Amino acid sequence: MSTSPSIRRVLVAGGTHGNEWVGAWLAQKWERDPRAILREGFESVPLLANPPAVERGVRYVDQDLNRSFDNPLPVAGSPWEVQRAREILDAFGPGGRTPVDVVLDLHTTTANMGLSFIITNLEPFTLAMAAWVTRHEPALRVYAWIDETLPTSALTTIVPYGATIEVGPTPNNVVRGDLLLATERVVEHCLDFVEASLRGDLAQRQPERLDVFMHQRACDYPRDAQGAVTAYVHPRLQDADYQPLNPGDPIFQTLDGETLLYEGEGPVFPVFVNEAAYYEKGIAFSLCRRETLWV
Amino acid sequence: MSTSPSIRRVLVAGGTHGNEWVGAWLAQKWERDPRAILREGFESVPLLANPPAVERGVRYVDQDLNRSFDNPLPVAGSPWEVQRAREILDAFGPGGRTPVDVVLDLHTTTANMGLSFIITNLEPFTLAMAAWVTRHEPALRVYAWIDETLPTSALTTIVPYGATIEVGPTPNNVVRGDLLLATERVVEHCLDFVEASLRGDLAQRQPERLDVFMHQRACDYPRDAQGAVTAYVHPRLQDADYQPLNPGDPIFQTLDGETLLYEGEGPVFPVFVNEAAYYEKGIAFSLCRRETLWV
Repeated sequence: MSTSPSIRRVLVAGGTHGNEWVGAWLAQKWERDPRAILREGFESVPLLANPPAVERGVRYVDQDLNRSFDNPLPVAGSPWEVQRAREILDAFGPGGRTPVDVVLDLHTTTANMGLSFIITNLEPFTLAMAAWVTRHEPALRVYAWIDETLPTSALTTIVPYGATIEVGPTPNNVVRGDLLLATERVVEHCLDFVEASLRGDLAQRQPERLDVFMHQRACDYPRDAQGAVTAYVHPRLQDADYQPLNPGDPIFQTLDGETLLYEGEGPVFPVFVNEAAYYEKGIAFSLCRRETLWV
Repeated sequence: MSTSPSIRRVLVAGGTHGNEWVGAWLAQKWERDPRAILREGFESVPLLANPPAVERGVRYVDQDLNRSFDNPLPVAGSPWEVQRAREILDAFGPGGRTPVDVVLDLHTTTANMGLSFIITNLEPFTLAMAAWVTRHEPALRVYAWIDETLPTSALTTIVPYGATIEVGPTPNNVVRGDLLLATERVVEHCLDFVEASLRGDLAQRQPERLDVFMHQRACDYPRDAQGAVTAYVHPRLQDADYQPLNPGDPIFQTLDGETLLYEGEGPVFPVFVNEAAYYEKGIAFSLCRRETLWV
């Protein structure tokens, strides 16, 4: 990365999903007292992304805000989140009143994904930020969720650079202190990275290796003719996010005790295993391949 | 327990809270195929307690069903759960069409409570059942939640004998296979106990020791003047359900980093630490004393 992009403003968003309280609490904390996210050379903007959903403790009011940024023209009667996405784009999107260059969006998951850094493109600046954060948080994993279902509809995709910081496992509608503190650390590392890049400290950096989990496909639960889920994630796959899954490994168990096996190619690496919000999306888990990039 | 009570019917309920899916799935499984809960000498009745709440994936529609059994006379416009409690009482309560003698109510918690057997009275039959189940599931803990807020409003309190089987930690709106299998085992041990008691196999049993966590009081989060929570459960207390808590131990941490310490008597034993559903009830955790009973 010989030339760092010019960064004027970084958006640090939480509460994009109203029942994911770690990010919502941090966004509100930084709105009250932004000292922890202030850096030299650019502006950090905290944002509580979906206040009414946070207030009610629900993921969303009408539809998933984090799948609403590809529908920029609300009309009378549009879902609340379509209106809210437009407000956020008008304020912070390209051509907005105070456009941002980087978005950090804070999420939690019920899956055992530890500290995950989810990126939706492979821009050199984004990858260099991922490598920087990984160096400071060795437990962090980088997941490149690049597929046709996401790129233009998530909050992080309104600008070229950014990441979703996804921590778990945690139930919704609680704040786990350990995950709140970890999320704070990751945000601070990201901001330190931006500051260093603007100071020119990264201009001479040498390429380094970065393990990236590359999204392949989502897998749904077995369902009956009415669409009802008929099996649960097998106990051996439960909590096994980012662990290798090979042909013949158990993936589901039916209520009648039948075990269903993975029949695809391997090894693959599952993520979002048994995420509560994804039953309605038809995703029991997603599968990745692990690649090592020089970034 | 020299004389066992006569037991004609056992109610096995799940989905009393519609976002606690382990019990909801098991109740529906047993409604389709009751073989696993059939025993000699009495009838086992599976019940999906709050179907519309399960359908929507919410804890309740209008109010907590498991706090609604003290309000038996619904009127026009009564909350759904008051009406549903009346339906359940008319069917299974004392004087109902098919009255039950024992209620097993299946719940999950976001707290790290493992396998918990929650009782709301110290009837010898209930305690003997707890001892039996503990003998078969040594990891199970018995929590006597006896205080003025619960006794007449929970589903288990409509008859003299029964228990809430509470498993965790788990997010809401997911099924963890390990907890589903554990819940099934505990239910089967309870039914085996009832069967053995009716066969007279318990008549000559010797008293045995049973550790019981006796409810003392609930503790709320620190809150501001508007009632908003201002601190999270301290990471050292998080997941420490049933572990001794002593004066001077940390219990909360504010967003500004201040640590709040436990100042009461000790040792006490916390339960329901950071349960998602209890933020609205004003409970960050409850405190117990541990007593050993001869039962």
